[in-house]
Amino acid sequence: MKLRIRRVPLDTLRENVAVLSASCTALRPESFQAFKRLEIVHDDRVLIASLDVTHDLSLVAPDQIGLTDPAFCRLGLPEGAEVSISPARRPQSLSAVGQKISGGALSGLQIGEIVRDIAAHRYSDMEIVAFLVGCAGFMTSQEVLDLTRAMANAGTTLHWPSPMIVDKHCIGGIPGNRTSMIVVPIVAAHGLSIPKTSSRAITSPAGTADTMEVLANVDLSVAEMRKVVEACKGCLVWGGHVNLSPVDDILIGVERPLNLDTREQMVASIMSKKLAAGSTHLLIDVPIGPTAKIRNGSEALKLRKLFEYVSDQIGLKVEVVVTDGSRPVGRGVGPVLEARDVMAVLRNDVAAPSDLREKSLRLAGLLIDQDPAVRGGAGYHRAEALLASGAALAAMERIIEAQGRPRATPALGALQADILAPSDGVVLSTDCLRISQLARLAGAPIARGAGLDLFRQVGDRVEKGEPLFRIYAAEPSHYDLALAAAREENGFALGVTNGENV
Amino acid sequence: MKLRIRRVPLDTLRENVAVLSASCTALRPESFQAFKRLEIVHDDRVLIASLDVTHDLSLVAPDQIGLTDPAFCRLGLPEGAEVSISPARRPQSLSAVGQKISGGALSGLQIGEIVRDIAAHRYSDMEIVAFLVGCAGFMTSQEVLDLTRAMANAGTTLHWPSPMIVDKHCIGGIPGNRTSMIVVPIVAAHGLSIPKTSSRAITSPAGTADTMEVLANVDLSVAEMRKVVEACKGCLVWGGHVNLSPVDDILIGVERPLNLDTREQMVASIMSKKLAAGSTHLLIDVPIGPTAKIRNGSEALKLRKLFEYVSDQIGLKVEVVVTDGSRPVGRGVGPVLEARDVMAVLRNDVAAPSDLREKSLRLAGLLIDQDPAVRGGAGYHRAEALLASGAALAAMERIIEAQGRPRATPALGALQADILAPSDGVVLSTDCLRISQLARLAGAPIARGAGLDLFRQVGDRVEKGEPLFRIYAAEPSHYDLALAAAREENGFALGVTNGENV
Repeated sequence: MKLRIRRVPLDTLRENVAVLSASCTALRPESFQAFKRLEIVHDDRVLIASLDVTHDLSLVAPDQIGLTDPAFCRLGLPEGAEVSISPARRPQSLSAVGQKISGGALSGLQIGEIVRDIAAHRYSDMEIVAFLVGCAGFMTSQEVLDLTRAMANAGTTLHWPSPMIVDKHCIGGIPGNRTSMIVVPIVAAHGLSIPKTSSRAITSPAGTADTMEVLANVDLSVAEMRKVVEACKGCLVWGGHVNLSPVDDILIGVERPLNLDTREQMVASIMSKKLAAGSTHLLIDVPIGPTAKIRNGSEALKLRKLFEYVSDQIGLKVEVVVTDGSRPVGRGVGPVLEARDVMAVLRNDVAAPSDLREKSLRLAGLLIDQDPAVRGGAGYHRAEALLASGAALAAMERIIEAQGRPRATPALGALQADILAPSDGVVLSTDCLRISQLARLAGAPIARGAGLDLFRQVGDRVEKGEPLFRIYAAEPSHYDLALAAAREENGFALGVTNGENV
Repeated sequence: MKLRIRRVPLDTLRENVAVLSASCTALRPESFQAFKRLEIVHDDRVLIASLDVTHDLSLVAPDQIGLTDPAFCRLGLPEGAEVSISPARRPQSLSAVGQKISGGALSGLQIGEIVRDIAAHRYSDMEIVAFLVGCAGFMTSQEVLDLTRAMANAGTTLHWPSPMIVDKHCIGGIPGNRTSMIVVPIVAAHGLSIPKTSSRAITSPAGTADTMEVLANVDLSVAEMRKVVEACKGCLVWGGHVNLSPVDDILIGVERPLNLDTREQMVASIMSKKLAAGSTHLLIDVPIGPTAKIRNGSEALKLRKLFEYVSDQIGLKVEVVVTDGSRPVGRGVGPVLEARDVMAVLRNDVAAPSDLREKSLRLAGLLIDQDPAVRGGAGYHRAEALLASGAALAAMERIIEAQGRPRATPALGALQADILAPSDGVVLSTDCLRISQLARLAGAPIARGAGLDLFRQVGDRVEKGEPLFRIYAAEPSHYDLALAAAREENGFALGVTNGENV
């Protein structure tokens, strides 16, 4: 018996959800409840969806099947089209997930099947969590390698004419820290190909794609991206249209809300994206700090070893560089504010944040050092020269022009409030997590002009009543939330110079 | 800013789901997307819900918040009531879940907090999976004990006037096997108190509550249950109204669809229910077989040891009995067919299934042996005498009368088909999993009269074309599914007597 498709206007994110009427004519929904998964078939199209039930005939009638937004879009049939349904068979690869959960190591074949099933949206969110948490127990280096390869193969893979494709990646977690937008124009100005794809923020106040979007269009297709790189040597685009390692995006969407963050997943995630992107030389920025993802040197060392193992096996040259992750980099936190800092550095403004400038030069220098034509150790000076001469700024302008300028430049949030020092003292530390939270509460990254502008850094002396930072928000509800949260805990620890808290 | 409640007529099972309009006036839904969890507050009521977004103003308007069935019922406010929302703070106990995932052992305090948060519906389904899979890696005996205690304390705990409260439990997985409905009246007729609460089927074709419901009302409150036990010494009711270890039900609802089934969870699940039920003496039936939950003696031994450790610590006398789990018990599979078998045994019908009778007598005998007044080893004969004399049948009739007879007795499914032996031979084995699947496809347990009637057992000789079993279904769609599946694979392996497959 057939059911007609009805769109149910609900965005259930990743998960395919179907809705049956409690008095469905094709099959009793109760029969599915234990499994909650059903298979929707139309000719050779098959979609697996989780099941909700409704008693409201106006939402879904007994001879209809409701499909929420992601399910409707993925099936790609019009409303009214006829489909048949049956209880979904468990994806066979779930038995390998069970094996992983009970402590087994999986073969490359098994990991490949799991990744293919996830890519085809055959796993429920709960099944994805089961896989990820099972892997969080332990993964062998071989499993990490197999997962990297399988994820890279599950999407687009890019190939470039140039034999040397450099890239940089930061494992994240540090507010500000928009070095990519300075490193890419410097390296491109030097003459190396650096086609950078970035993500939008998921749990941070801005991703590189969000910040770049303040200055230029970042929604480029693969063909458009190629043109930009051909013309400018570099680009700074959103990875969403490029479809590199799409399973990585699915996994991240599940990991983030659960705070699942293992070394193994991180390596597979980053390396699968870079492998698919056709990179040959990769620089990985690993900030260490008490509120960063990596808390100490021994964790960083383990991470570096795993990156090196996987990259050696897949034939990608990787250099891991450990940086200071104890404090935000730059002054702005949030897309518009960060874009301001980036352009200040590129323009050689005297007021440009020196920490952002220094870190970007260091990273760019290390990438330029990879160029066989450059004398060993000369990379930093070359980077500095390209920045000082305006060549990097010119490269950035070319990239912006090639990607397309935005129709309107987003403005800073109109609602502003300064958070003041409660006492005299010296800034002993700043809590990166808290700074990020406050910027998000203020509305970043969705509100481009929202975020924090930091006036003080670790080591600065402040007097009672002087502003530590300014909150920018575009909407009263965000403004209220951020202000209340900042008054509760602003992330700045003040003390006297001998380190004793005041 | 306040939002007005609107009911969204969707049954999302366990999970609280809230729906905001994409143009919600209180807070931009995008701000929540990364976390997908929000807190809904009205005076001192707080509900945590996952978030979906809609673009359809007729479903949820910008100044409304949609609540799906479970969320609406749990919040307990009328439509139009005003609530405020904010991003949900992560339950603090989730950091303990993270610790478990990375291989730590949790303290009793941490496990207590996790269980309380799950009981209060503060965990999303995905967070519950993370906890369960984290535990599936390993759990110390102490953790199992702590989990048992925490779960038992999270719901109703029953106290009985009698100092000796016996109970039996089967770990499940064997079709038919409705021994409780025979053991309870025998033991009650003997004079021991046996207040049995049972579950409805989740993934099996019938739970004891489903089968008992064919004969009597099983939806009893605690007070009603007490009355029945006072009058009859025993009862056979559904545990749903009694609220024993409700967290166990939540965990099972997540474990089953994922096929998560660890020894540790099983022990904590069963023991928490029995501890809350006020049992003092418990008999646990552990069937062993190639398609049962426990596959061999060494697994059974580990399970027994864990049951014994936990029961010793909580002061409950437990006996684990290993039984034959290689084949179905009784002939009927599905509520009406199983109830028929049970009553045939109690009535001492010559045609009653002897395996069901024998197993029930063995279990009842072991329970009666716990009675200090009974001479050691005399339990089995006492059970046999109570069954043969009709005392057990009379006890069952009293229990049925006290619980209340159903308004109408459900009929056997009208759609019937025999599955025939494809060749001459001997039944070498029957696949319990397949038999259960086929009965479920036929509509059991929702369709009470659906299921399988097994005509042949392991060891029986059949001729080509003789019926192996009959499928009963109430609806054409179920009938078609079950018949097609049975024709593909009927679960019976036929061979010649020397064991060679034909």
